[in-house]
Amino acid sequence: MTKTAAIIGGGVIGGGWAARFLLNGWDVVICDPDPEAERKIGEVLDNARRSLPALSDVAVPQEGRLSFAASLTEAVKDADWIQESVPERLEIKHRVFAEIQANCRKDALIGSSTSGFKPSELQEGAARPEQIFVAHPFNPVYLLPLIELVGNAGTTARAKSVLEAIGMKPLIVRQEIDAHIADRFLEAVWREALWLIKDGVATTEEIDDAIRFGFGLRWAQMGLFETYRIAGGEAGMRHFIAQFGPCLSWPWTKLMDVPELTDELTDRIADQSDAQSGRHSIRELERIRDDNLVAMMRALKPRNWGAGALLKAHDERVRPPLPAELDKPLITQRRVIPIDWTDYNGHMNESRYGQVFSDAGDVVMAMVGADQAYIDSGFSYFTVYNNITYREETRAGEVVFVRSQVFEAKGKKLGMYHELCREGDGALLATCKQLLVHVSLETRRSCEPGPEVSARLDALHEAQMKLPKPESMRD
Amino acid sequence: MTKTAAIIGGGVIGGGWAARFLLNGWDVVICDPDPEAERKIGEVLDNARRSLPALSDVAVPQEGRLSFAASLTEAVKDADWIQESVPERLEIKHRVFAEIQANCRKDALIGSSTSGFKPSELQEGAARPEQIFVAHPFNPVYLLPLIELVGNAGTTARAKSVLEAIGMKPLIVRQEIDAHIADRFLEAVWREALWLIKDGVATTEEIDDAIRFGFGLRWAQMGLFETYRIAGGEAGMRHFIAQFGPCLSWPWTKLMDVPELTDELTDRIADQSDAQSGRHSIRELERIRDDNLVAMMRALKPRNWGAGALLKAHDERVRPPLPAELDKPLITQRRVIPIDWTDYNGHMNESRYGQVFSDAGDVVMAMVGADQAYIDSGFSYFTVYNNITYREETRAGEVVFVRSQVFEAKGKKLGMYHELCREGDGALLATCKQLLVHVSLETRRSCEPGPEVSARLDALHEAQMKLPKPESMRD
Repeated sequence: MTKTAAIIGGGVIGGGWAARFLLNGWDVVICDPDPEAERKIGEVLDNARRSLPALSDVAVPQEGRLSFAASLTEAVKDADWIQESVPERLEIKHRVFAEIQANCRKDALIGSSTSGFKPSELQEGAARPEQIFVAHPFNPVYLLPLIELVGNAGTTARAKSVLEAIGMKPLIVRQEIDAHIADRFLEAVWREALWLIKDGVATTEEIDDAIRFGFGLRWAQMGLFETYRIAGGEAGMRHFIAQFGPCLSWPWTKLMDVPELTDELTDRIADQSDAQSGRHSIRELERIRDDNLVAMMRALKPRNWGAGALLKAHDERVRPPLPAELDKPLITQRRVIPIDWTDYNGHMNESRYGQVFSDAGDVVMAMVGADQAYIDSGFSYFTVYNNITYREETRAGEVVFVRSQVFEAKGKKLGMYHELCREGDGALLATCKQLLVHVSLETRRSCEPGPEVSARLDALHEAQMKLPKPESMRD
Repeated sequence: MTKTAAIIGGGVIGGGWAARFLLNGWDVVICDPDPEAERKIGEVLDNARRSLPALSDVAVPQEGRLSFAASLTEAVKDADWIQESVPERLEIKHRVFAEIQANCRKDALIGSSTSGFKPSELQEGAARPEQIFVAHPFNPVYLLPLIELVGNAGTTARAKSVLEAIGMKPLIVRQEIDAHIADRFLEAVWREALWLIKDGVATTEEIDDAIRFGFGLRWAQMGLFETYRIAGGEAGMRHFIAQFGPCLSWPWTKLMDVPELTDELTDRIADQSDAQSGRHSIRELERIRDDNLVAMMRALKPRNWGAGALLKAHDERVRPPLPAELDKPLITQRRVIPIDWTDYNGHMNESRYGQVFSDAGDVVMAMVGADQAYIDSGFSYFTVYNNITYREETRAGEVVFVRSQVFEAKGKKLGMYHELCREGDGALLATCKQLLVHVSLETRRSCEPGPEVSARLDALHEAQMKLPKPESMRD
């Protein structure tokens, strides 16, 4: 049954939560007194719709229903998850939690997006304190996987499985602490950066470059400790600490002290930031950021590492079963065209059509039992030819599917017709005639498949040969 | 003329510098008293050879010559660049600089990899102080672009252009300061992380996850300030500071204080790190890291952003000119197969053959004047079909080239035979018969090209029609 999330406070963070739930098939009810809330949420959703589905290599769920509630009472009454993202003032949060708990289901999960308050502070005076926990996200919430969960162990365990099901990476913080974990680092870096600007050592742009051309790249895939473990070499972490430890007492950082945020310092930062980024509007910067994040996270996917491993596992969780009815054209792919598959002509690059057809061929391979386990056992299929014709353009964000038909499935050969179509109007975008040959991965030469694969090939052959040749392939 | 770099101190950092120079065509002389230096450098080079060339989409230069010098005198005497990466002890560095300056060219650049010392400290007592500067790299030096340059303005300006020519991102630090810029942030985060572990709040793995699933992803492409600029929304940086500023006085971080690195704390970190990463050897972790970095930086390349923009600009700088002799088969591609183009079968995925042929087609387009400026003017070519046959496998790290021949270049049509071959033995890996059609990007329909492109098409057609059909395409 469709689940419902109530989003209390609809700014950038609330909007990001709304998008994350909605695009994962949840219904979402927004409650925000701001008359601009609907427009603001709409803008976040526009960004999310063009980027979040691109993380996936399988079909994304049907988007849930979005509605705006006139009152907090109405918003929370049927909700499975209630997410509070109101301003960071404890008395406001207490008032909101009191009204939520007076009206929500007792089994609802009530998360707070707070970056500063501890659960014990949020829970003060609550009717059911254990129902309230910290679920601290990172902007953009619809793309970045991390959520810090802090609170009652039973509640955060339930929250964890909900968030995992919508593709996130919940990190349970076992001991409550000001600013949880990640923001302590951000705070430390922020203070140090302010000093560098105040002292005229570096501009905002120089600081950003010092981050993104160096350790920022490292930290997108391994954190502090795994990186330093490598730096320690074979001697490992102990060696690294012995080498690096003494520096701890050097006066490298200014962090003993906090710079005063005078108007002058604020102006300096704002002016430097304008010089650095002012040629892009915030909306443009958001889309540049989102495209970058999608491309990098997708790049980590085949590496099966970090955020990429998470995406891969999520795809596996929601991947549809293999086609079971052999006597029909087989639906072997259904997916969104990701942003990073488009080229200078503004449409999907020709080579990515090849990738979709390659993925379609992999599905037919899996249907005859040549799946990952079979490949690991030393056998696979290699492609002999791909004859691709391009009929129509397709663009980022479009949902496409591949209809495949087997024209040969005997002995070493596996031949297929693929038709790439647009979901919705069914327009034919491209065709591919593809021939695979069964190989030994040891000799790298063709060989007969094992008896189980052979039997499945025969069954597939028999069922598919009765189908007429696709019209697009006749001539 | 081939330039020479002398690498003084051959650990992980010195080895990384050696690889960066060597794989960019410099000769490299290593000086390190460690009897294991040659083995250690060899290991770094193995890593670099499998990853650095993969950053490039054009042919990489011929590797320079590597040699090991018996003495520092011999190592530095002809060097254009001398890089000091000896232990972080000032008296050792002073001794090394004195010997270097007694023997090197007066116009040689002498960089120090120091993370802690300021140029004024390094230069104390030097014969020619202005010759010595900080060139602080980030591990792995052969992949991460950032170099912090600190020192005399004239010297660092010269150093900057040398480093840019080998694909790096030199950041001139205008005011000398302990730990330069980036390490101040790393130091701040490191101290905070030690407290979290000491207090039992989080393990090494939890801290790493808090980084790499959240802000680490952001920082691989935008730094602190550009990220916060977006968080401030249309109201911009001033709004962000007004909102976030007050938190500065909250006691979120422990950084007023420094934890003592007791044996107990060291053991705890080392044990947690083993639990987190111990299933991989350091060598494995290095390769995982390198593959991740290559894949992410490559992902940023089509986005033309950050490290990706840097790679793209470097490719353009070293890209060979378009083929000029029209009456021969055209060499339209020459490149290394990057790691992220391989698949579960351990070889280049079939769709990436399509990408190489697509790129080859782009070169022929550029030859007839349909280059980026022409595309920006509203016209381009779309692909009608690609008929690809696969002959032999190709693997990451292999150098390949495409030999293209035009079989039709008239009116709207541009037809090509492409042959993908391995450099060295010339083995034919795949063929592609490709037809493009000239289009208006406004109507998205075919149309006649402009007079200049038409004239070039005619010339190409006339010259190429005299060539015999490639043998691989006959039948």
